[in-house]
Formats: sequence, structure tokens, C-alpha cells
Amino acid sequence: MSSSASRTTQLVLGGARSGKSRFAMQQALTLSDQPVYVATAEARDDEMKARITQHKNERGNQWRTLEVPLKLCDTLSAQPAGQVLLVDCLTLWLSNVMLGEQDVARASKTLVNTVHSCPASVILVANEVGMGLVPETPLGRSFRDAQGRLNQQIAEVVDTVYFVAAGLPLKLK
Amino acid sequence: MSSSASRTTQLVLGGARSGKSRFAMQQALTLSDQPVYVATAEARDDEMKARITQHKNERGNQWRTLEVPLKLCDTLSAQPAGQVLLVDCLTLWLSNVMLGEQDVARASKTLVNTVHSCPASVILVANEVGMGLVPETPLGRSFRDAQGRLNQQIAEVVDTVYFVAAGLPLKLK
Amino acid sequence: MSSSASRTTQLVLGGARSGKSRFAMQQALTLSDQPVYVATAEARDDEMKARITQHKNERGNQWRTLEVPLKLCDTLSAQPAGQVLLVDCLTLWLSNVMLGEQDVARASKTLVNTVHSCPASVILVANEVGMGLVPETPLGRSFRDAQGRLNQQIAEVVDTVYFVAAGLPLKLK
Repeated sequence: MSSSASRTTQLVLGGARSGKSRFAMQQALTLSDQPVYVATAEARDDEMKARITQHKNERGNQWRTLEVPLKLCDTLSAQPAGQVLLVDCLTLWLSNVMLGEQDVARASKTLVNTVHSCPASVILVANEVGMGLVPETPLGRSFRDAQGRLNQQIAEVVDTVYFVAAGLPLKLK
Repeated sequence: MSSSASRTTQLVLGGARSGKSRFAMQQALTLSDQPVYVATAEARDDEMKARITQHKNERGNQWRTLEVPLKLCDTLSAQPAGQVLLVDCLTLWLSNVMLGEQDVARASKTLVNTVHSCPASVILVANEVGMGLVPETPLGRSFRDAQGRLNQQIAEVVDTVYFVAAGLPLKLK
Repeated sequence: MSSSASRTTQLVLGGARSGKSRFAMQQALTLSDQPVYVATAEARDDEMKARITQHKNERGNQWRTLEVPLKLCDTLSAQPAGQVLLVDCLTLWLSNVMLGEQDVARASKTLVNTVHSCPASVILVANEVGMGLVPETPLGRSFRDAQGRLNQQIAEVVDTVYFVAAGLPLKLK
């Protein structure tokens, strides 16, 4: 485990199936040999449960997994200095916030503040969702806008931002 | 106001809510302390009017605002050397051109020529809209294609092109 | 024609109408004065036939054109060392594979192996399709995922990867 002196925060941004999670996992393993995988996916049905278990097995024993569909801030704040957390991903978390009919702007702001101030190192994975046409539905537009704003806000407070395409990272910050 | 000797043209490309407008505004303010904001949004209803007024107030007194949903070329040509214009954005303008049933290819070409030859400095904001799946409707496909072609043509004639993601610029040219 | 000593493989990734094909063609012409254009579009109707013929004429006499909607591996393997092939594009090919109800994962893997081992130089054009919202339909989601995976796999085995926006290339690898 790295010392708290080397605390770092990163945002890994990319499209669907861009290899962003795999890259983020590699980053986490360069920082710690016992990173924590914070999964925001919710095991709502058996198929989902099976997929989550499969991914957990694929990650192997090095990783500890926490399932946190909503209360990311509590989880981030509770981890000690020196710990390395990989949050995969902000897009599912945002979706959970919206489905839970919470105040998205407020939840986003609280998360940004928590990422900025929590003692542990944090790597956050998020989707770029704004490079298609304008979504047909109001919900689609709201989600796209909320994700874009969150990505900007997180990018502002973290140390490093990567944009991933075809598995290859491009450092934006 | 900067001298005509330092005339510059820029394209700022990005997804929805990527922070491209904010970045473009910062760029404009590094070039001039009295830039002109050329808004292509049209105040069709009271909600839109309220939003446009709000944005205007947020920009503050430094900025002069022109509302130009369609006649961009007239506006660009009429501004003197030394002036700095921010056109926000080409995507709304293109949408206005298509809704007005004008010849899109011709209007695009005229705009490209005007950007190339007008005396003022110009910063143009445009959306990247081609990185999702193929749009369902013919209109959607036409719009996506027209925007992609316009972005390429503008990129060819301007001095500098930025790609913005999560508020962070990447210089493409 | 360049010697087999300088065999190279490239992936040119970009959105729709991003100028990726034009850039890929320029790359091919820097490698060979007699490149082969491998078109994956299928001439299903007269309109499509007319478009394919038009594109062929626009490319000019330097290019030899092969129409290969599906059997890319056979074509790539059959070309001699020193030849330069431009495959335009993997997205249409993948769509043809899915429409033909072939095993997409297997076809992708075979293609990746062929690109890795074939004697000729190959430049492959592919779409980035994962930067919009989650597609509405299961087929849309499958396609997006398959394309993202293929792009990652191809990126891993080729020498060079470009990301193109507004006609401008960004070297990712």
C-alpha cells in the first residue's frame, strides 16, 4: 500500500467498451497491490448477480470489492489514507441517483467535494455520453447534461484526467 | 482590443456539456477585453427568452451580445479588424439552416469562405455529433453528416482547433 | 510499392463524417503509389451501386478496388508482402457479420489474428460509436459493444492508432 504522501486522484473518461475500466484497473494496481473496487452496479436480478460475481472472480484475489450503488460519499470518506479506490463507474452511479429521484445537481456537488477532500487515493471511471445527436427524450437529455456537468466538475478537482479510446489513454490533465 | 496584426481563427469542438463554450469564452477574453458573443439560439418562446437573458447576465458587461440565428456571414463580414467574435454555436446555426430548408452544403461553404476572409478574429464552437450509433431517422443522419462535413471544412481554414472533453482542451491543430 | 521490410499496420478511428477515410487514404498513398482499397460496403441496390462507382472514380486510377463485404481475412491473407491495403471500414464489415448471423466474437478474433500476421501492410478504418447515450435497442447495444471490443483488439495488435476529429488526426499509439 502506498503512503498517504502519494495520494492521487484520477478521472478515466471514455466511451462504452473503450477499455476505460481495464486501463483504470491497471492504474490502480500501479498504486497499490491491494486496491478496493467500488462497484456501482446493482444486483437487481439473477443475471446481474451472475455477471457481478463473474467480474469479481476475473479481478482476482488482490482486489476487495464493495458494492455501492448510491452512497459513494460515505464509502470514499470512510477509507483511510494510503488506500486506493477504483470507482466503476460514475455513469451507473448517476443513473442510480436519477432513478432514486434524488437532486442530481446536489448529489454531484457533494461527490465532487468528497473526491476532493477524502483521505484515500481515488480513480473514477466515467462515460463520455455527449458526442452523439441530441437524445430524443427529455430524460435522455437530462442524463446527458448531468453526466457532462459531473465530468467537468470531477475533472476540475482531480490531479489527472485520461480520455480512453480503443483501450489507449490520452492524458488531458 | 487586439490589433488586426494578431487576427486569429479558432474552432472549439466538443460533445454536449463538455465545457466547450466556457473554454471558448476564456479564449476570447485572452484576445480581447470587449469580445462579441454571437448567439445562434433563437428566442422562440418565453422559456428560451428567459434562458438567453440569464446567459447574457452571467457573461457580464464585458461582452456585447448579437443574436444571429441564421445570417452569420453578414455578421462576420460586418465586424472590423481587431474585433473578437465568439460564435456559439455552429450546431444550432446548422439546425436553423436545415429547419429553414436552405441548401445546407451551399450555406456551409459560404460560411467557411467568410470565416476564412472576414477581418475580425473568430472563435467558433461546434458539437461533435458523430460518435454514437447511426441515427434512426433520415433527418438525423443528414444532420450528423452535415455537421461532420462542416466541422472538417471549418477545421481546414482556421488557425487552431481544440477538442474539449470534461472541460479540458486538446489541441488538434 | 514499398518493401516488405517496412510492413506497417494502422487503425484509423473516428466518428461519422470525421474525415477518417480521407486521412486513411492519405496515409496509404504515403506508403504506396498503388494501394488497394478494400470496400466493405455492399452494392445491394442501384443507389448503392451508383455511390460505390462514384467513390471509385473519385479515388482515381492509382487505386485498385476490391469489394469485400465479409471475407476480409481471405483478402488480407492473399495479398503479398509490399502491398498496402486500406480496409474501409470495419464498422460496415461488423454490421455485415451481424446481419449474416455469424458469431461476432469469433469473427472478430479471426480478423485480429489475420491483421497481426498477414504479409501486406494494412490500414483499417473504424467508427467510434460508444460516445452517445446507451442505445435503446438490444441490437444497438450489442453492436456498440462488439464494435468497441473489436476496436480495442485491433488497436492492441497494430503498430499505430489515430483518432480523427474534424479531419485532424491525433496519434494514440
